[in-house]
Amino acid sequence: MSIAHLHQLYVDHLLKHAFTGSPNNLYEPMKYIMELGGKRIRPILCMSGAEACGGKAEDAIDVAHAMEVFHNFSLVHDDIMDRADQRRGLPTVHIKWNEPTAILAGDNLLVKAYESILAFQGPGKDAILKLFSTTATQVCEGQQDDMDFADRNAVSEAEYLQMIQNKTAVLLGCSLASGALVANADAEIVQGLYDFAIAIGMSFQMMDDYLDAFGDSDKTGKVAGGDIKEGKKTWLYIKSCELDNQTPVWFSEPSLDHRVKAVKAHWIRMGLDQRILDKAKEYNQEGLRLLDVLSKKGVQTSGLVEILDFLAVRAH
Amino acid sequence: MSIAHLHQLYVDHLLKHAFTGSPNNLYEPMKYIMELGGKRIRPILCMSGAEACGGKAEDAIDVAHAMEVFHNFSLVHDDIMDRADQRRGLPTVHIKWNEPTAILAGDNLLVKAYESILAFQGPGKDAILKLFSTTATQVCEGQQDDMDFADRNAVSEAEYLQMIQNKTAVLLGCSLASGALVANADAEIVQGLYDFAIAIGMSFQMMDDYLDAFGDSDKTGKVAGGDIKEGKKTWLYIKSCELDNQTPVWFSEPSLDHRVKAVKAHWIRMGLDQRILDKAKEYNQEGLRLLDVLSKKGVQTSGLVEILDFLAVRAH
Repeated sequence: MSIAHLHQLYVDHLLKHAFTGSPNNLYEPMKYIMELGGKRIRPILCMSGAEACGGKAEDAIDVAHAMEVFHNFSLVHDDIMDRADQRRGLPTVHIKWNEPTAILAGDNLLVKAYESILAFQGPGKDAILKLFSTTATQVCEGQQDDMDFADRNAVSEAEYLQMIQNKTAVLLGCSLASGALVANADAEIVQGLYDFAIAIGMSFQMMDDYLDAFGDSDKTGKVAGGDIKEGKKTWLYIKSCELDNQTPVWFSEPSLDHRVKAVKAHWIRMGLDQRILDKAKEYNQEGLRLLDVLSKKGVQTSGLVEILDFLAVRAH
Repeated sequence: MSIAHLHQLYVDHLLKHAFTGSPNNLYEPMKYIMELGGKRIRPILCMSGAEACGGKAEDAIDVAHAMEVFHNFSLVHDDIMDRADQRRGLPTVHIKWNEPTAILAGDNLLVKAYESILAFQGPGKDAILKLFSTTATQVCEGQQDDMDFADRNAVSEAEYLQMIQNKTAVLLGCSLASGALVANADAEIVQGLYDFAIAIGMSFQMMDDYLDAFGDSDKTGKVAGGDIKEGKKTWLYIKSCELDNQTPVWFSEPSLDHRVKAVKAHWIRMGLDQRILDKAKEYNQEGLRLLDVLSKKGVQTSGLVEILDFLAVRAH
C-alpha cells in the first residue's frame, strides 16, 4: 500500500477507536491529543514493516496504534516539562485543561499503548512487548538527557547523537521492527529494519535542526531560529562550540532577533549549514545501504524507500 | 509463609533489583521512592495469592515487584498533582528533584512495572498483563474522579465508594488475583480472591478516613483532622451532608483547629464515628465470607486471614 493509503487506514482505525469513557476530564484530553493530526509516521512505519516481510498491514493495526498512542503520551508529558503552550497551533493539554489532568491523561495513554499491543494475537507478541518496553525506557532517558543538557556548559557530539537517538529515533525503530515481528520475520531481518529506521530517524532530526535555523518559518510553522533564541544545544550549537574551541560568545547578543542573525551568519561562515545537510544525507545513505542488504534477503523494500523519500525531501 | 517472611523475601528482591542506570537524574528518584519503605502490602498479597492456590511465593516475585513498582509510580505522580511536599517524613520526588524529573521517573516506573510482569514466564502471563492494564486505567480514573470531586459541591456515597475502589482497592485485587494466576488458578478462584482483596481494600480505606478524623495523630503520623482542614470529600463528609440535608455549614469555622473540633463534635453527635467503623467491619465480614467460599473450593486461606487481621486491627 502507498503511504497515503496506509495513512488513511490508520486514521480510520483511530477515529473508530477514539478514546472515550468516564470521567470526561480524563478521556477528553486523550482524544484531543490523538486527533490533533500529524504525519502518523510511526503507525505507517509499523504497517510497512509487516508488508515488507510478507504480512498484511491490517494485521499490524493494533500494534501500529500502540506506537502512535505512545508517541502522543510522550508529547503530552514533554509539553508539560518543556512548558510548551501550543502544539500544531492549538493549546497543549496542560494549557487547555491543567497539569494534573495532563499528567494523568498521559499516564493512561501509556497504559492504552500497552493494551493495544495486548490486543494483537500472534507469536511475535512477547518480542514486541519487550522491544516496546525497552524503547519506552530509552525515550524517558533521552528526555531526561535533553533536560540535563540544558543545564550543562559542554555537551559532546556523541552525547547529543545518543540523546536524539533515544528521544526520537528508537521509537521509529521499534515501530518498523514491531511490524516485522507481526509478520513473524527472522531476528536478523527485524534488526536490519530497526537499524534502517534509526538511520532515517537521525536524518530526520538533522533536517529538523537545519530547518529550525535555516528553514523558511512560513513553511515550517515554527518560530524562525527558535532553537537559537532558546540557546538549545543542537548539533549546530555543539559543533560550532567544538570548532570555535570555546563557549559560544555570539549567543550573548542581547536582542533575540540580532542574536539569530549573528549566529546564523557565523554558522554559515563556518560552513555548518552545509555540514548538517551532509550529515543528514549520510544517515539517509546508510539507510539505503541497509535496505539494499535487506532486499537481498527477500525483504520487499519499495515501500520503505518511499517512506525514506517522504521524510528526506522536505522543507518543513 | 508468614507476612513477615514474605515481607523479607520481597525487600531482599527489591534491594537486589534496585533501579540504576544513566542518566542519574532519571534512576535515582526511582530508587529513592522504592526504598522509602512501607508495608509492601501489594507484593505480599501477590505472593500470598500464589501460595493460597498451591503455588510458590518465589514464582510470583516478578509479578509481585510489578505491583509495588506500579504503586510507587502512582505515588510519585499523585504527589505532584496533590502538591504533597512530604511522604513518610521525607521530601517527595518533585520536591527533592523537580516536577519534570518526577513526571519522567514516574513514567519510567510504569514501564518497569510492565517489564517486571514480562520477566515472568508462565501460562498466566497474558491474563496478568490484561488485568494489570485494566487496573492501571481504573487507578487513573479514580485519581481524576478524586480531583474532580474537590471542585464539586455534591458527591454521592456511591460515587465516593466507586472512586476509592478505583483509586485504592483495585490494585489490591489485581495483586492478589495476579498471584493466583501465577499459580494457574481457575477463573472462578481468581475472581473470588479479587473480590476478597477489594473488600479488605475498602475496609482499609474506611479505617483510613476514620483515623484521619478520630485517630491519635501521634500514632498515625498524619496531621490531626487533615481531611477536615482540607474540606476533603471523605465518606464522613459526604454522609454528614446527606444526613444534614445541606452543605456542611460547620466547615465555615475560620480557625482550622476550631473547625476540626466543631466538625468532630458534630460527627460524634450524629454517631458517624461508630457508623464508619461499622462500615469497615462490614467490608471485613464480606471478606471473611468470600474466604469461606474459597476455602470450600480448596483454596488455602489461612495466610489471607492473617493479612486481613494485619490490615484491620490497627491504630495507624
